[in-house]
Amino acid sequence: MARKTAIIIHGGVGGDSQFIQENLEKYEQGLRDALHAGTRILDSGGRSVDAVEAAVNSLEDNSLFNAGRGSAINGKAQVEMCASIMDGKNYNSGAVAIVKNVKNPISLAKAIMLNTDYIYIGGAGALDYAQKINISLEPDSYFITEHQYDKYAKQREDEFKSTNATAREEISKRLAGTVGAVAIDAEGNIAAATSTGGTPNAKEGRIGDSSMIGVGSFADNRLCGVSTTGDGEYLIRGVIAYDIAAVMDYKGLSLEEACDFVVKQKHGKVKGYMGVIAIDKDANIAQCFNGERMHRAWRTKDGEEKVMIYKDQAGL
Amino acid sequence: MARKTAIIIHGGVGGDSQFIQENLEKYEQGLRDALHAGTRILDSGGRSVDAVEAAVNSLEDNSLFNAGRGSAINGKAQVEMCASIMDGKNYNSGAVAIVKNVKNPISLAKAIMLNTDYIYIGGAGALDYAQKINISLEPDSYFITEHQYDKYAKQREDEFKSTNATAREEISKRLAGTVGAVAIDAEGNIAAATSTGGTPNAKEGRIGDSSMIGVGSFADNRLCGVSTTGDGEYLIRGVIAYDIAAVMDYKGLSLEEACDFVVKQKHGKVKGYMGVIAIDKDANIAQCFNGERMHRAWRTKDGEEKVMIYKDQAGL
Repeated sequence: MARKTAIIIHGGVGGDSQFIQENLEKYEQGLRDALHAGTRILDSGGRSVDAVEAAVNSLEDNSLFNAGRGSAINGKAQVEMCASIMDGKNYNSGAVAIVKNVKNPISLAKAIMLNTDYIYIGGAGALDYAQKINISLEPDSYFITEHQYDKYAKQREDEFKSTNATAREEISKRLAGTVGAVAIDAEGNIAAATSTGGTPNAKEGRIGDSSMIGVGSFADNRLCGVSTTGDGEYLIRGVIAYDIAAVMDYKGLSLEEACDFVVKQKHGKVKGYMGVIAIDKDANIAQCFNGERMHRAWRTKDGEEKVMIYKDQAGL
Repeated sequence: MARKTAIIIHGGVGGDSQFIQENLEKYEQGLRDALHAGTRILDSGGRSVDAVEAAVNSLEDNSLFNAGRGSAINGKAQVEMCASIMDGKNYNSGAVAIVKNVKNPISLAKAIMLNTDYIYIGGAGALDYAQKINISLEPDSYFITEHQYDKYAKQREDEFKSTNATAREEISKRLAGTVGAVAIDAEGNIAAATSTGGTPNAKEGRIGDSSMIGVGSFADNRLCGVSTTGDGEYLIRGVIAYDIAAVMDYKGLSLEEACDFVVKQKHGKVKGYMGVIAIDKDANIAQCFNGERMHRAWRTKDGEEKVMIYKDQAGL
């Protein structure tokens, strides 16, 4: 008998901003569209790994989100993207780091997972492979939006004026933005995917936590699937995506308790943003974050759909 | 009062080979030299993070090991190296992926950890930073040894002849080789470091598991430090370095039990090599691997020193 499906997606954790307030409806519509790209696949009996790819593709193609089109512009005025995907059925994984010109980095990560003996490919080698398998490429200008260009220009100016901690904190408030999805299909397979356009004005070659299996994405049918967003430095040190699975496995906590334990208790004092979305083997959904907002949407196993951005809407 | 120090290093896990047999004494001497590079720092009151760097530097400079000089040659006839380091005192971490021309990738990873707001930098951006901070660079030819060139040439030939699983297994028997070190200093600080030259004839841009915090290296003064070696695909999916710490933390196992649980029980059926070295907060040393050999050396908290290569010498 087919089991109940569920899916949750995110579009980044962080502080509030005028830009978000001004584009609230567009953000909500973008999240709704991405959610539906995923649910359409689940509802037609498709696999969770395809559902998370479709949801992330939708967010990558939407210039409001920092992944694919709309990616951050780095310190060399370039766009370098990172993504990872994991299939909880067999632990197959694929990831790309600092790749340029690939329209949908998550689809390249999936192709690496399915068609190669590799998991993790970066830079020119990743673009080279994308070209070989005919994945859509776009010229540099495709990825660059006015909004991200303004962030880039503003940050260069700010850095010029001041490099003190307060300025850095102000800047970091504006830059969080990664996209991700976790889904469970009718066969009980859990998949997780995460994609990012990096951080504005970052050093060339900065590898995003989103591309790291265990940090950005993790999935294990026995336990759960997780996609993370936030300050890479804290996510990496805490191996956050895998840690949620480990806490469930070794401490016997529920999904909700595990997310709460990792984000609020274990890492409650970090001075950076941290957000997670997760689904367990029984199709329960959990979400936990410490910012003012985490762009997110989900459909529960009972068919209830929600789109939310701010914190006070966190409850299911 | 100063506490007892300990250090353990590895030079890769894998199958036996004629080359290893013919160079056994040189390998043992190389391991001894690297161990002493680390113990010298610990004995003079130095920090574990400097001890693991020194030990890994010694192995990187030794052309017999697949890291720094002596790195594998990839499918584009290039050398791309990966490394990571973590300080268990404050969770500070540094890592580099697919970097070229850097004599000691682990020292670049340490510089990123200490001097930047980043953790993980790859490709041209990493080389660019190395140049800026004046870390030693070497021309391409420095890294390429006759032994690695032979492997590369042989594998190209083998791949041409056959791509069946048996051929791939035979090839993989020869290619494991990464270096790493874990140490605890007199202040009780634990550090872990891992460095690799990759795998012969690999796709350009393949990012090594050794460069991933949580997979290649992990350190937490509360629990342990770990450096791993083996088949990247299994190490990545299992988030092996962090998993050992998680098992200690959440299941309450001892270091020895945790290494055994992760390598022998949880991943006992993987069809690839896996090896770990680790030290806990009480300066106990553990090692666990599934290959015919893991090049390794250690000095216990009681001052006992050992250098070992094959399996039947595994016991302390």
